[in-house]
Amino acid sequence: MTINKHDTVRAIEWKNDRLYLLDQRLLPDTRKELEYTDVASVATAITDMVVRGAPAIGITAAFGVVIAARRRYQQSTTDWKELIEEDLSMLAASRPTAINLFWAIERMRELINAIDADPVSILLNEAKRIHDEDIAANYRMGELALGLIQDHSSVLTHCNAGSLATGGYGTALGVIRACWTAGKLDSVYADETRPWLQGSRLTAWELLQDQIPVTLIAEGAASMLMQQRMISWIIVGSDRIAANGDVANKIGTYNLAISARYHGVKFMVVAPTSTIAMQTPTGKDIPIEFRDADELLSLSGQPVAASGAEAWNPVFDVTPASLVDVIVTEKGLIQAPDEAKIHALMRA
Amino acid sequence: MTINKHDTVRAIEWKNDRLYLLDQRLLPDTRKELEYTDVASVATAITDMVVRGAPAIGITAAFGVVIAARRRYQQSTTDWKELIEEDLSMLAASRPTAINLFWAIERMRELINAIDADPVSILLNEAKRIHDEDIAANYRMGELALGLIQDHSSVLTHCNAGSLATGGYGTALGVIRACWTAGKLDSVYADETRPWLQGSRLTAWELLQDQIPVTLIAEGAASMLMQQRMISWIIVGSDRIAANGDVANKIGTYNLAISARYHGVKFMVVAPTSTIAMQTPTGKDIPIEFRDADELLSLSGQPVAASGAEAWNPVFDVTPASLVDVIVTEKGLIQAPDEAKIHALMRA
Repeated sequence: MTINKHDTVRAIEWKNDRLYLLDQRLLPDTRKELEYTDVASVATAITDMVVRGAPAIGITAAFGVVIAARRRYQQSTTDWKELIEEDLSMLAASRPTAINLFWAIERMRELINAIDADPVSILLNEAKRIHDEDIAANYRMGELALGLIQDHSSVLTHCNAGSLATGGYGTALGVIRACWTAGKLDSVYADETRPWLQGSRLTAWELLQDQIPVTLIAEGAASMLMQQRMISWIIVGSDRIAANGDVANKIGTYNLAISARYHGVKFMVVAPTSTIAMQTPTGKDIPIEFRDADELLSLSGQPVAASGAEAWNPVFDVTPASLVDVIVTEKGLIQAPDEAKIHALMRA
Repeated sequence: MTINKHDTVRAIEWKNDRLYLLDQRLLPDTRKELEYTDVASVATAITDMVVRGAPAIGITAAFGVVIAARRRYQQSTTDWKELIEEDLSMLAASRPTAINLFWAIERMRELINAIDADPVSILLNEAKRIHDEDIAANYRMGELALGLIQDHSSVLTHCNAGSLATGGYGTALGVIRACWTAGKLDSVYADETRPWLQGSRLTAWELLQDQIPVTLIAEGAASMLMQQRMISWIIVGSDRIAANGDVANKIGTYNLAISARYHGVKFMVVAPTSTIAMQTPTGKDIPIEFRDADELLSLSGQPVAASGAEAWNPVFDVTPASLVDVIVTEKGLIQAPDEAKIHALMRA
């Protein structure tokens, strides 16, 4: 089935020879683009979550490499390949979990190794290609997943795996967009997604921009939603899929997968193959980022917790492949994922 | 084993012939007592969550009956028993889920039926007795549960089932206090408990007042905490236990129980027998309160979600008895609770 492609909000744009990022820390109240002309600021933007979402981080890093190459090539037309290594390392250190970051940097590095002349336009074309391919992958995944969803389904998503988290259209939200447009969905529920409230702030905003009604729930209400048979699918993105099919995604995803299995609700992970890390054997090998306690203890600078309380704030968790019903990639579906099926898909 | 009884913060006090409630909406920033001299305000205080927690609501309602009786007896020494029915109905309508509310009103009504003279001092004594019995039950439950917890345990609690939710000392937090004082606990984790943040605001504050260190987590992080083997028990209170052992408690509890079973973590419910509703056959018969969408969509009056988003906000859920390892009451422990064991305990 072909889906109705349409423009959605963009988190990342290259224009006027500069990188622009929509500041996702300010959404939904304020829609503000920030301009980037140096690689250190790009790395900081990733760390500080101006831009977030695994595919979006990868695309941003690719444009960061372009910005770095321009400066390094100006600095030295002979030594720029050595000099840029520091920039690539800085970009790679910006966040630890999403593999798309390292994947994009590696793809740009391979091209750097092959370049003889002025690298800027060649690298810029490659970064744009990474961006375009990601959008195309999202459309393709939307098409592929359509066949899995029955008419009159209701679904729950977690965090934001939408246009804002990708090149455009979205992974999990791409599937939800495709299903909504095809008239298959009765209701879309979204976890508010503590502590950063990606669900309340980003997913709700993005879906409402597309006239798709959305109902927010507290994470704690997800199991009751399933107990009441109000949803038949949970649809999420991923920050890294290990070679055995274990899935790292926003903290709270693992909770949902356990409860989905308990209730017989289906659990779908939507991610381009750039998210599959063949060099990461299992979920245990995925580095999990912990962020500042303040994310949990305060909101918009106001304390919400009793003074003196500690916080444990891992921002991703790992769902074992055994709890995943299907992984949707642009190369095809992997039902009941395991190591053999992942290898077969990645070799194809 | 006898536990070290000690004074904890009080949510409810009767002094100067008036009822005082600690305003839990303002904690932890502001510690303010509100004074109540009419029954309508007491009912509103329960609805608006000035006071919350099933046992605390029951005690508050009992004092509310005293206040009502004073006025009705002044109004008419002959018709006050008829007139007060309206007040009892108003108190009973203040919140739907916690059975302790109806239990306390019923206990006061039975006494009203038996009174011939000025009811005020008799009813006041009964309300004080309900309050004192609740505290005594909490101490007893702390003693009984001590034997279940191994040395060097770490535990997770949800919502606030502490001194603030009861007459004093607490149900789940009473057990945690007793275990901490006995040196059995390495760490206490608390869910922040969206949307009302009872964990961050109340449980953390209350434990820190007692010098018990506490680490907050987002609800979404609970399964990872278990996956990492960081806790061996989840300890919660309850708002209503059905005759078959199904447990209503703060939204998110059911999530925890499913995940606890998946990980082999033990799940304990601590509640006085005033929380056991023999007239409620199963969890399906427990009325679940839904509160305003704004609880989820805004915080301290500031919107946190995209404008136009809906919210589904049930504030309690039901955990089936099959997922509960033990119910701790002041009359004894019920391991692997079921209808027969609950009946046996309640007849004892």
